[in-house]
Amino acid sequence: MELIFLGTTAAVPSSERGHSSIALKYHDEVLLWDCGEGTQRQLIRSKTSYMKVKKIFITHYHGDHFLGLPGLFQTMSFAGRSEELMVYGPKGIKNLIGNVLDLGEYELSFDLRTKRITGNFILKDEKCTIRGIKVNHSIPTYGLLFEEIKGREFLIDKALELGIKPGPAYSRLQRGGRVKIDEHWVDPEDVLGEIKKGYKVLYSSDTRPIDGILSSCDGSTLIHDATFDESLAKNARETYHSTCIDAAEIAKKGGAKELFLTHISPRYKKGEVLLNQARSIFPRTTVARDLMRVKPIL
Amino acid sequence: MELIFLGTTAAVPSSERGHSSIALKYHDEVLLWDCGEGTQRQLIRSKTSYMKVKKIFITHYHGDHFLGLPGLFQTMSFAGRSEELMVYGPKGIKNLIGNVLDLGEYELSFDLRTKRITGNFILKDEKCTIRGIKVNHSIPTYGLLFEEIKGREFLIDKALELGIKPGPAYSRLQRGGRVKIDEHWVDPEDVLGEIKKGYKVLYSSDTRPIDGILSSCDGSTLIHDATFDESLAKNARETYHSTCIDAAEIAKKGGAKELFLTHISPRYKKGEVLLNQARSIFPRTTVARDLMRVKPIL
Repeated sequence: MELIFLGTTAAVPSSERGHSSIALKYHDEVLLWDCGEGTQRQLIRSKTSYMKVKKIFITHYHGDHFLGLPGLFQTMSFAGRSEELMVYGPKGIKNLIGNVLDLGEYELSFDLRTKRITGNFILKDEKCTIRGIKVNHSIPTYGLLFEEIKGREFLIDKALELGIKPGPAYSRLQRGGRVKIDEHWVDPEDVLGEIKKGYKVLYSSDTRPIDGILSSCDGSTLIHDATFDESLAKNARETYHSTCIDAAEIAKKGGAKELFLTHISPRYKKGEVLLNQARSIFPRTTVARDLMRVKPIL
Repeated sequence: MELIFLGTTAAVPSSERGHSSIALKYHDEVLLWDCGEGTQRQLIRSKTSYMKVKKIFITHYHGDHFLGLPGLFQTMSFAGRSEELMVYGPKGIKNLIGNVLDLGEYELSFDLRTKRITGNFILKDEKCTIRGIKVNHSIPTYGLLFEEIKGREFLIDKALELGIKPGPAYSRLQRGGRVKIDEHWVDPEDVLGEIKKGYKVLYSSDTRPIDGILSSCDGSTLIHDATFDESLAKNARETYHSTCIDAAEIAKKGGAKELFLTHISPRYKKGEVLLNQARSIFPRTTVARDLMRVKPIL
């Protein structure tokens, strides 16, 4: 699992920072969380194949979070993509994608499906779940929570002790089934240990500090809106954003493992002021930079 | 007068090159010729104020030439622009802008007017004319010709010799009126010399080599499609683009002063191959790079 910050600015780009997008590389798949203008070029710059993007999540309909979609779709078509692409977003996603597909003279080469993110949104496969978390911004907006699903540890020594040989019986037990050995039944509980740790990544999107993020935060790699430093707390309140202190307090109270500040106002260059303020509360803080690659803490 | 190449790639961006756009800085105004994805950021990088962009010309409706519009409009609105913006483009410009304005949740803070570019398109003010030139691409496409309007040189020595004192009589003669001095009439022809040289910039947009560009080329700074090198002439024909040799031949036959190759396929990095081929025909050739600044030859 790897996170790549493709764009980390707030609203307006700067020489240093492009518009919002985060790539999650997981197994052979790339998920995009938001897709601001310039995302296709940042994917190319980060040597992340846009053809491996299977699912795109748009957290809300401010342009700096989705205006990279039309160009990305057109480039995918230009490259002859045939694999279906899913795009998730709040109410209105179908209309938005309809408008996006109306832009310009080209043929979409692949199927594009949309699905609405709601407060109950859960996407689940055998490897992970992704949930939508309603946050508090000026328009309907959802944060996103990625949780890897990990099975329980298989205690090989215990299995051997009970006379079970490596093979199909192991898989059966791992999947929760019982196995009969020499007239005795062995239960999964006899050979399964702790649940293995999985990655947990939580993205606040654009928001005021909010309970929904706080309560999902435990043990996570938290990526939080930190548009302003604390001296501009008034601006943060007025524009429904967070300060770096807001983000650090969520990380601390919520028990995050690490915190990445993003959606940085272009008034901050490298963001030392944000970093110093946030670290005074939550030391494991980093200010995200464009093209920064991160392996989340397990 | 200064040209800034904001984006010089063909279709798909690369680490080196972004999508098509050229800024013409002229007096206190900025014109944009095409506005591909990422143009607003390139304006910022080149320290060119997006608030000074008064007119945008979209040469055709392939996404790599206009998908920077929605983000640019939103950023201008975010910055509180109130000045009217004109957007010119081929048939369909009104619909296109309608779709672009439908994208996302924001209020446009300024008036946005559109005007269609046709084969007869001429925009004229006291300083310059801009013409549309129909070119030969896979969809309706116009090249653009900028010509500065310059008056004739005023021959001060001759005027003094004829007994005319500096003042209103000079202006009258410069504007083409006669002046009476000591019962003699002085005609403009008596005191006006050569027409002063003005800037002439010709942009082919995406096209096969075409007579319309050739015949407008004399004395110009020519910016020409050079998507491919000559070994891929077949690709150029099939996709309605030009090779660097096509561009150089137009420049040579048409009498351009200098040639800039643009719309460079991402397969070429620095473009030496394009440069060497083109210079074998037209030595004053440069391969445009993103953020390259050029003062056209007078």
